[in-house]
Amino acid sequence: MTKKLSRGVAVVGVGMSKFGAFPEKHSRDLFVEAYQELKQSVQNGFDPKEIEAFYMGNFSSDHFENQAHLAPIVASWVGLSPVASMRIEDACASGGVALRQAVLAIASGQCDVVLVGGLEKMTDLSAARVTDALALAADTMFEVPAGFTFPGFYASMATAYLDQYHADPDALLKVGIKNHENGALNEKAQFGQRISDVMASKKAKAAQKGLPIPEWADEMAFMKDPKANPMIAWPLRLFDCSPVSDGAAAVLLVSEELAQKYTDHPIYIIGAGQASDGALAERDSLSSVPSAAHAAAQAYEMAGLTPDDIDFAEVHDCFTIAEVMATEDLGFFPRGEGWKAAMAGETARDGKHPVNTSGGLKAKGHPVGASGVAQVVEMWKQLNGLAGGRQLTPRPTVGLTHNVGGTGQTCVVHIFERRS
Amino acid sequence: MTKKLSRGVAVVGVGMSKFGAFPEKHSRDLFVEAYQELKQSVQNGFDPKEIEAFYMGNFSSDHFENQAHLAPIVASWVGLSPVASMRIEDACASGGVALRQAVLAIASGQCDVVLVGGLEKMTDLSAARVTDALALAADTMFEVPAGFTFPGFYASMATAYLDQYHADPDALLKVGIKNHENGALNEKAQFGQRISDVMASKKAKAAQKGLPIPEWADEMAFMKDPKANPMIAWPLRLFDCSPVSDGAAAVLLVSEELAQKYTDHPIYIIGAGQASDGALAERDSLSSVPSAAHAAAQAYEMAGLTPDDIDFAEVHDCFTIAEVMATEDLGFFPRGEGWKAAMAGETARDGKHPVNTSGGLKAKGHPVGASGVAQVVEMWKQLNGLAGGRQLTPRPTVGLTHNVGGTGQTCVVHIFERRS
Repeated sequence: MTKKLSRGVAVVGVGMSKFGAFPEKHSRDLFVEAYQELKQSVQNGFDPKEIEAFYMGNFSSDHFENQAHLAPIVASWVGLSPVASMRIEDACASGGVALRQAVLAIASGQCDVVLVGGLEKMTDLSAARVTDALALAADTMFEVPAGFTFPGFYASMATAYLDQYHADPDALLKVGIKNHENGALNEKAQFGQRISDVMASKKAKAAQKGLPIPEWADEMAFMKDPKANPMIAWPLRLFDCSPVSDGAAAVLLVSEELAQKYTDHPIYIIGAGQASDGALAERDSLSSVPSAAHAAAQAYEMAGLTPDDIDFAEVHDCFTIAEVMATEDLGFFPRGEGWKAAMAGETARDGKHPVNTSGGLKAKGHPVGASGVAQVVEMWKQLNGLAGGRQLTPRPTVGLTHNVGGTGQTCVVHIFERRS
Repeated sequence: MTKKLSRGVAVVGVGMSKFGAFPEKHSRDLFVEAYQELKQSVQNGFDPKEIEAFYMGNFSSDHFENQAHLAPIVASWVGLSPVASMRIEDACASGGVALRQAVLAIASGQCDVVLVGGLEKMTDLSAARVTDALALAADTMFEVPAGFTFPGFYASMATAYLDQYHADPDALLKVGIKNHENGALNEKAQFGQRISDVMASKKAKAAQKGLPIPEWADEMAFMKDPKANPMIAWPLRLFDCSPVSDGAAAVLLVSEELAQKYTDHPIYIIGAGQASDGALAERDSLSSVPSAAHAAAQAYEMAGLTPDDIDFAEVHDCFTIAEVMATEDLGFFPRGEGWKAAMAGETARDGKHPVNTSGGLKAKGHPVGASGVAQVVEMWKQLNGLAGGRQLTPRPTVGLTHNVGGTGQTCVVHIFERRS
């Protein structure tokens, strides 16, 4: 799977809805929001009739909205019938895998213009039912009956990681602080507050209620306060966990030779990789995600690049430990060094390897089927200098997305490049 | 979407499980059965490590088995990790759409060898819950609240068809009789009985119980007996409806230039088309399926063929009326003439346009995500002269598959050819 694409593929426009909780909206409404923004973003415009296929990532509208067969419904909702429309489901990697199939559809010569969508509407269910629905992404024959839900899975991985590398658990808290720092600069993020903002807001609320005003020496003190940041599954606390979210994202892909017709600032997909794995219990080690390493190796080989060529990355931080492991699986840091890099600020916007400038799943939100597509929105913004207050300087040239399903039963990696 | 594939694709092996009700098995076990048969069918064998991607059609393991993210689990279950694995969901067209994505993956140059799977395990739930789960393939915002489930949808389409063309409803019964006739010759079929066998068996049962032995002048009399063949949703009776089924199917695709390495009797995919549509209520007419006509037009154009070049077809007879409409949507008969052709036996094995020689969904069974892939199994058998008692003579050269999701929100068509 490391062959070159037989035809180049470019992104010529992107859009996303606000991420958050929108009780009045269906997922299809959120997709309209994303698609409208995408239409505005295509510099020279386009006729929707040019779209030849619609690849849609969605994890479980089946359970979240009691709706299957969602791809043609969404296509019809935005006026695209009779375009070929298909839903891809690979748990939280659904969006990234949909992107990959769209890339292959263009490379195959069958399509010149393809719409990729990702969407999920999770907040209609109670938190307990959401946790149960998400658990269906694990092996329900073996893993779920053993008592696991996803915070437990990632807590086990975190425990293994901390033990194996004698890592400081504070590194995880640092990841959360950093991602909230970035998310505060993303107008589409579910959580637009820095941790310091959260602290100030909690103090103000206490004052308003005439309660004792909590004292925190700094953000780390807040993050270690069991009341402010309660333990969910040791060592993961509330601010280690991505939220339950509603949201949608959309990306327009065209064949490389057509890109300039649509925009003078396309970004090109120069690497792609995907891999799978069995249940977590079958893995030799819990401190890394083999499918991520496989997918990254494929993408690097296709792009002819190494990890050091990547200027920034959007990685799948469903839990903070997942971001730390991702930075190792992707080769940004040696095994066992990712936590040190997080502690030292190397993944911050001004660090050596900026990660999750969008706020990541943690702060931007994690409407699971949308997340892999929303990562491409950040690629577009950063590579084109459109990322506002969170814009990396100098403007990056090459970015990478890393999207995981389950505990790594699926991983898909893409590499993007600007040429202007 | 009517461009030629940039690279040819061949089928080099197929397999399927028995279709039926298997309370002791999970869908992954059924897939093992299909995959083992596939391995046996590849003349020169192959190393599973050669498989570069796994495309899996499944409608709702989410609801039927309480399991999402099924593709990597199934891949792991048959020893294929870390192969890129993805689930395609387009309701009952999931299998056919998975096939199409696999074709594009090979055409893109990214893969040489791809496994396509389709599976569904439906019989664990009660019939009422299965009907509810299937209804999620319709628009649950508008159609389901109006009281529709799938027998009702297709009954509405049948009513519209019968009215518009002053058609004889007996034509539908003829389709059921014909498909049971074929299914009786298919050892994998859920229902291995001709309608005459069903009559004989009902008579024997009555005799055994000392009840009055029913008298039916012929099969049509049986099919019109409201006790023997009760009305489900007028004009559709029990024997107009495909069953609830468990089953899996698997197909191995390779690039055209590699085909002879695997077998001296590959079959080639020379046409492919896919289209979508909105809710049934938005359609101008209920007596045809526009997405099927679109998909067929694409496939014919790619193959450079016309409907008269098709020697036989496997079409999506979820209900008998669907087969009649399919034979018109695919251009085998003019609009409004499909029912006459069914009456006249033109779709029987010895007719001008043999349809559903496998028994179709009606008699073979309809494990929804598997159906589109199982259609390819019949292509392989008929084109290679391996179809036993139901083998068409002379051995056909070109066959077509037609797989529908919902009431035509998705349709995917493929055309297959033998060259030896």
